[in-house]
Amino acid sequence: MTERVFNFSPGPAMLPTEVLAQVRDELLDWHGRGTSIIEVSHRSVDFLAVFEQVERDLRELLVIPHGYHVLFLQGGAATQFSAVPMNLLRGRDRADYVNTGEWSTRAIREARKLCQVNVVATSEPEGFRYAPKQSDWHLDPRAAYVHYCPNETIHGVEFHWTPDTDDVPLVADMSSNILARPLDVSRFGVIYAGAQKNIGPAGLTLAIVRADLVGGALPYTPSTVNYELQVAHGSMFNTPCTFSIYVAGLVFQWLKRRGGLAVVEQENIAKAKLLYDCIDATGFYRNPVAKEDRSRMNVPFTLCNPELDPVFLQQAKERGLVALKGHKVAGGMRASLYNAMPIEGVQALVAFMREFEARHG
Amino acid sequence: MTERVFNFSPGPAMLPTEVLAQVRDELLDWHGRGTSIIEVSHRSVDFLAVFEQVERDLRELLVIPHGYHVLFLQGGAATQFSAVPMNLLRGRDRADYVNTGEWSTRAIREARKLCQVNVVATSEPEGFRYAPKQSDWHLDPRAAYVHYCPNETIHGVEFHWTPDTDDVPLVADMSSNILARPLDVSRFGVIYAGAQKNIGPAGLTLAIVRADLVGGALPYTPSTVNYELQVAHGSMFNTPCTFSIYVAGLVFQWLKRRGGLAVVEQENIAKAKLLYDCIDATGFYRNPVAKEDRSRMNVPFTLCNPELDPVFLQQAKERGLVALKGHKVAGGMRASLYNAMPIEGVQALVAFMREFEARHG
Repeated sequence: MTERVFNFSPGPAMLPTEVLAQVRDELLDWHGRGTSIIEVSHRSVDFLAVFEQVERDLRELLVIPHGYHVLFLQGGAATQFSAVPMNLLRGRDRADYVNTGEWSTRAIREARKLCQVNVVATSEPEGFRYAPKQSDWHLDPRAAYVHYCPNETIHGVEFHWTPDTDDVPLVADMSSNILARPLDVSRFGVIYAGAQKNIGPAGLTLAIVRADLVGGALPYTPSTVNYELQVAHGSMFNTPCTFSIYVAGLVFQWLKRRGGLAVVEQENIAKAKLLYDCIDATGFYRNPVAKEDRSRMNVPFTLCNPELDPVFLQQAKERGLVALKGHKVAGGMRASLYNAMPIEGVQALVAFMREFEARHG
Repeated sequence: MTERVFNFSPGPAMLPTEVLAQVRDELLDWHGRGTSIIEVSHRSVDFLAVFEQVERDLRELLVIPHGYHVLFLQGGAATQFSAVPMNLLRGRDRADYVNTGEWSTRAIREARKLCQVNVVATSEPEGFRYAPKQSDWHLDPRAAYVHYCPNETIHGVEFHWTPDTDDVPLVADMSSNILARPLDVSRFGVIYAGAQKNIGPAGLTLAIVRADLVGGALPYTPSTVNYELQVAHGSMFNTPCTFSIYVAGLVFQWLKRRGGLAVVEQENIAKAKLLYDCIDATGFYRNPVAKEDRSRMNVPFTLCNPELDPVFLQQAKERGLVALKGHKVAGGMRASLYNAMPIEGVQALVAFMREFEARHG
């Protein structure tokens, strides 16, 4: 077998090697059943046991309070861009959105089909380089909810604080930083996340929904994204994405073995510091984001000479450092440092960056 | 490793052992890349190569004509129950539905939120035991489309003919019999199918859409189920379920190695005949469906004495014949004989049924 590379993909992204090894080892014969876990009915005793453990472990990791439902859905965060207004408008005609990058923008575009969207704060005029301070948000108390994206994967902007929206429910697209740190779930009305960054393989979408917000969806809401129906059916109104749920469960157990989210957060802080310190050292590399709002998960950076980009990417790949090309919207490079990226991967990247700078600086 | 059992689950269902073995063997290191195919971006060169091959193989197997788009979506057939009217009403206010069982009924329930549903034929009064003849359908030429379910997994009713709906597009929920026989795609406006029966693992939904039906979706259609947007983005408006697509591709290649759908159909006919002949032999077992409409894929049957059901299921399981319990709606037993069930599995089931009858008959 080829040695495993360090994969900096923004998603679908690196998974813990020991999780993949377990999936491999039990793929044809799960727990001595003579069948794969992906071949059994989602309503079978075996799968339901897996499923219940997955929810228990997630609740334990995130300390999800009673009074919150956990849903295991499909369709990605992009489907939640519609599901959120469909489920949460409940007789209101407007919602507040904060715009801090590409994913906020897409959520806003989708919501505009369904209600009046009030952009209460935006960093767009300055190129999405910071997270607007709470004191600059112009919240509307008549809004059905306030939506924001706590971590923008493309622009590399992360909120390191939780907004206060008073009695208006706060909704967060946490696709790219869920499980990267401890969280006070009670501050949120709805948290949703596509799985393919910090949770597991693509195909699974988590939604954590405060119980009082369930019910009263718009009449044309597809049943599969109707929170009330999915709560009533334990996320099995229809067949869920069983493989991704099963792998997510192995990731949750891996996080527990590592000591939980407080430990994981310290590792994420250390990984991000290593890379940002390297970027900031000399001016050869640049990251444009305000220091206090820099993402721990997605680190975009440019070379002072963009003509060197392809050389950088090629040489990095030869060192087993892959998927570092930046998103076309931002250009340059991007290193995604989700939970499954070991610090050794960041050390190897930084060592390479220093050498590259010495050769080309 | 435990010997692989014969798994008669209605879905998620048995997968070909050689497909699972390949997934296992390359799970940590796909084609020498040092990474798993489920860890790479859906927009990476490697995944796009997989993705394009998957579509090519599917087009070859089903002989999909030019002028049809193939979409790889999420959310299951249950989401298509909404997506079909959202995409196909296009200014009309009504659609025709044929009701032949549980899945037809659910599709109708969902469509009723969006338009006037005309049930043009139904076998419900007789307990869903047959497929209504075309001459008994009361089609409305003003309908936006005609919807039917060619194979009802719970009631075990299959259409062995394709309806003629004149100029009104025919829409089929083919979740449980796609790829089980050759198909004249040109007869259909839209074919959709959840993957977890004859295609691959749950989480993937296929939609094959005639090009002239794309466009003009209802304004509140979520973008992720908007055919026009997904066509424009090559099924990647959002991150697709990459694992299920990859495995589906391995299943398609396995079908090609077996000789394609004409060969597979003959095997499916032989498997179904073996089981129905056993059921019909003495009256100890019963299947209630009209003989000409019996499903090749899902064979529900009852014992003359239902008190023996748990004994039957337990003894079957001890012989490595699992997941034979019938759906609660129909009761009794159900054997699902999708493509991945080898004839040896049906032979083993029939041998057991004869022995069981000899002991208890």
